[in-house]
Amino acid sequence: MTRITQYDVYDLRFPTSVHADGSDAMNKDGDHSAAYVTLRTDRPGLEGHGFTFTIGRGTDVCVQAIRDRVQPLLGMDLDEATRDLGGTYRMLASDTQLRWIGPDKGAVHLAQAAVMNAVWDLAAKAAGKPVWEFVTDMSSEEIVDTADMSYLADEITPAEAVALLEEQEPRRAERIAHLEEHGFPCYSTAAGWLGYSDEKMRRLIRKELDAGTRNIKLKVGGSVEDDIRRCGIAREMIGPEGRLMLDANQVWDVPTAIEWMGELARFDPYWIEEPTHPDDILGHARIREGIAPIKVATGEHGMNRILHKQMMQAGSYDFCQIDACRLASVNEVLAVLIMAARRGIPVCPHAGGVGLCELIQHLIFIDYVAISGTLDNHYAEYIDHLHEHFLEPCVVRDGSYRLPRAPGYSSGMRARSLADYSFPDGRYWAEEHPKVLAARAAGRVDE
Amino acid sequence: MTRITQYDVYDLRFPTSVHADGSDAMNKDGDHSAAYVTLRTDRPGLEGHGFTFTIGRGTDVCVQAIRDRVQPLLGMDLDEATRDLGGTYRMLASDTQLRWIGPDKGAVHLAQAAVMNAVWDLAAKAAGKPVWEFVTDMSSEEIVDTADMSYLADEITPAEAVALLEEQEPRRAERIAHLEEHGFPCYSTAAGWLGYSDEKMRRLIRKELDAGTRNIKLKVGGSVEDDIRRCGIAREMIGPEGRLMLDANQVWDVPTAIEWMGELARFDPYWIEEPTHPDDILGHARIREGIAPIKVATGEHGMNRILHKQMMQAGSYDFCQIDACRLASVNEVLAVLIMAARRGIPVCPHAGGVGLCELIQHLIFIDYVAISGTLDNHYAEYIDHLHEHFLEPCVVRDGSYRLPRAPGYSSGMRARSLADYSFPDGRYWAEEHPKVLAARAAGRVDE
Repeated sequence: MTRITQYDVYDLRFPTSVHADGSDAMNKDGDHSAAYVTLRTDRPGLEGHGFTFTIGRGTDVCVQAIRDRVQPLLGMDLDEATRDLGGTYRMLASDTQLRWIGPDKGAVHLAQAAVMNAVWDLAAKAAGKPVWEFVTDMSSEEIVDTADMSYLADEITPAEAVALLEEQEPRRAERIAHLEEHGFPCYSTAAGWLGYSDEKMRRLIRKELDAGTRNIKLKVGGSVEDDIRRCGIAREMIGPEGRLMLDANQVWDVPTAIEWMGELARFDPYWIEEPTHPDDILGHARIREGIAPIKVATGEHGMNRILHKQMMQAGSYDFCQIDACRLASVNEVLAVLIMAARRGIPVCPHAGGVGLCELIQHLIFIDYVAISGTLDNHYAEYIDHLHEHFLEPCVVRDGSYRLPRAPGYSSGMRARSLADYSFPDGRYWAEEHPKVLAARAAGRVDE
Repeated sequence: MTRITQYDVYDLRFPTSVHADGSDAMNKDGDHSAAYVTLRTDRPGLEGHGFTFTIGRGTDVCVQAIRDRVQPLLGMDLDEATRDLGGTYRMLASDTQLRWIGPDKGAVHLAQAAVMNAVWDLAAKAAGKPVWEFVTDMSSEEIVDTADMSYLADEITPAEAVALLEEQEPRRAERIAHLEEHGFPCYSTAAGWLGYSDEKMRRLIRKELDAGTRNIKLKVGGSVEDDIRRCGIAREMIGPEGRLMLDANQVWDVPTAIEWMGELARFDPYWIEEPTHPDDILGHARIREGIAPIKVATGEHGMNRILHKQMMQAGSYDFCQIDACRLASVNEVLAVLIMAARRGIPVCPHAGGVGLCELIQHLIFIDYVAISGTLDNHYAEYIDHLHEHFLEPCVVRDGSYRLPRAPGYSSGMRARSLADYSFPDGRYWAEEHPKVLAARAAGRVDE
């Protein structure tokens, strides 16, 4: 018998604020970070890795929440923990003392994501399969049992969900073959961070075009004048057939969003992402109505399945942008994928950050193979950033994610990265960052 | 000049689970707790106290979030921090790194509540007034400037809010005089915890009746049979004219809530509280329609002003039960009070827990005097529990809260309580609790 014997948790921070990577109208100086947990077992070489994505301060809060969440797993039989992943998820989520400071949101929910991500990694490794294959090898009934369907009965019952997935079962193998050949199409945000100069933006869009991507996302919401100039440059470079996605990162209220998008409509944007506060279901619906035919995309800050259920019921979005580390791991993601498939709403996961691309590749493959069964209007975000810290970084070729083959959730990070970027005592933060700050103070930082 | 010089933060836990005080269908074994923060100044004797309410595990998570939130206050000039409380609130809330793990929800938002509660306590003490008087002495414009009106423009603009409050200004003095004479009416939950025996429930209802309260709240949602029996007892004791409030603490999904309340309708309940998940705005609206004329009350887990805005827009509740420690202090509470007044929705704050009664007394007085201007259908929760730990416990006489006179937010706790109930090293947890557990194991615990 194998046991889960111990855990380690890391506060990892990467100094992305130094070059304004990841900067937008809301988040001007984030340090892309992760509260990262390793579950160790007494079987040599077998461990699970999970994390939640953060942007600097507050990672310590998630670390504490993970310490509280992980306790019931310690000493548990690995088979017991991984045989019924729905049961393990519910066991961890049933801590009503932790639930009080959510429920299903904030640090305790991010911790549920991090810990269950590690459990999924462990379970898939024990089965010798990547997570996408581990799930698409399940029966429809097993998938629904694993999904967190609580509080969703007014939208879809578990029995209805099983029926929906069973319709897709016969074509699973055919779709896997399609993915093996073509991969899953993605779009890039790498060029459009708000803190980048026009020149840097041009250079990066050129790089994307050279790599075969004509779908570009720009951050907006700083000033109307800047947005008009930047959108003009981007539209000119990608041509009329390219897709121009815009992202306001929640800086507007409802009337401002409608007015501002009126100014940018001339650049034929495909969607506006996060036009207002992520909790504003009815506000998003009003914005969507007010800016049609421009579409609304949101969800990276969508805290849980209950919010997404209502976003769908109220007609708040055209694209559902789940986050693999904000929803409570595969269990809650499956529930949202099922609801979206029923409504015909494409799920285009949020990625970038630290390791989000590594996780979402599994989720989009699961969605296509076993749940929605379609690639129409499905675009997965991709940013070529921080992948060097991962043991098995995702592979994007010809603008498409490629199927990972290694067992697990692709969530493991290099030992060297853990040591260097642990905050505040890792080598980078203790030794190198003070030098970077000194150089910056002296005006010696390159763009 | 006075400066804010340092802070202390405490993880305080009270062993309420030992006697099932506070038990309900969702929370069977909570230990009522507080993440408590003291802001110290260099003026002798002047310090501010604030906290957020929790129920055991997870208090440590809030403590860490408070440590992160409080930093910008250290070294600040007291006048600067307290002159413009809206500005101080926005300054603390503008930390976008912490915002990422919310936004406006979960541990970082609870920490914003705790820290700003301490700032309000400090500001009111420096002004020599209780918080309710500190606010009702402000002009309507000052009140709105202090309120967090962000993301609310589609419901009410700041200018509309000022106009609404100005209508109430002429009658403020008259209403204070009314409160001085009559106080503010309350109802009690003390009798109805789910873990209490029928006999204990009868005894406690009798006590409430003797004290002049005919409004009783019972916890439901464990089993239909138990609920029918307990509701029958309560209705018989309070008579047909008494108000029977029920509280399901989120255990039902939407169809179950409608069905279950159909079974309890015969006992003429006045409201059902928290019939489903607190984030389910549209679900509450559907339940409300499905169980009319029974009313819906909810909001103690209402995470922020944006949720409450939508609850009002969707017609989700008849009673808005704000929580003084889940909303981000007086600033965010004011915004919700203003929106509720505009819609004519009574605000009946959640209380009990640790110190919630002490805080909400200020909020209901502010609401009546300066915002809603009415007592119609306004019932404030009151539970006679854990007040002994407070330096200035609230006073309830003849079923009504009485105006507190001491400067501040009534939020300070006794030094002895801080020392005894700090977790895990305080005297109670280190010495006494192990004995309680041993006695319980031996079957020697009284009801």
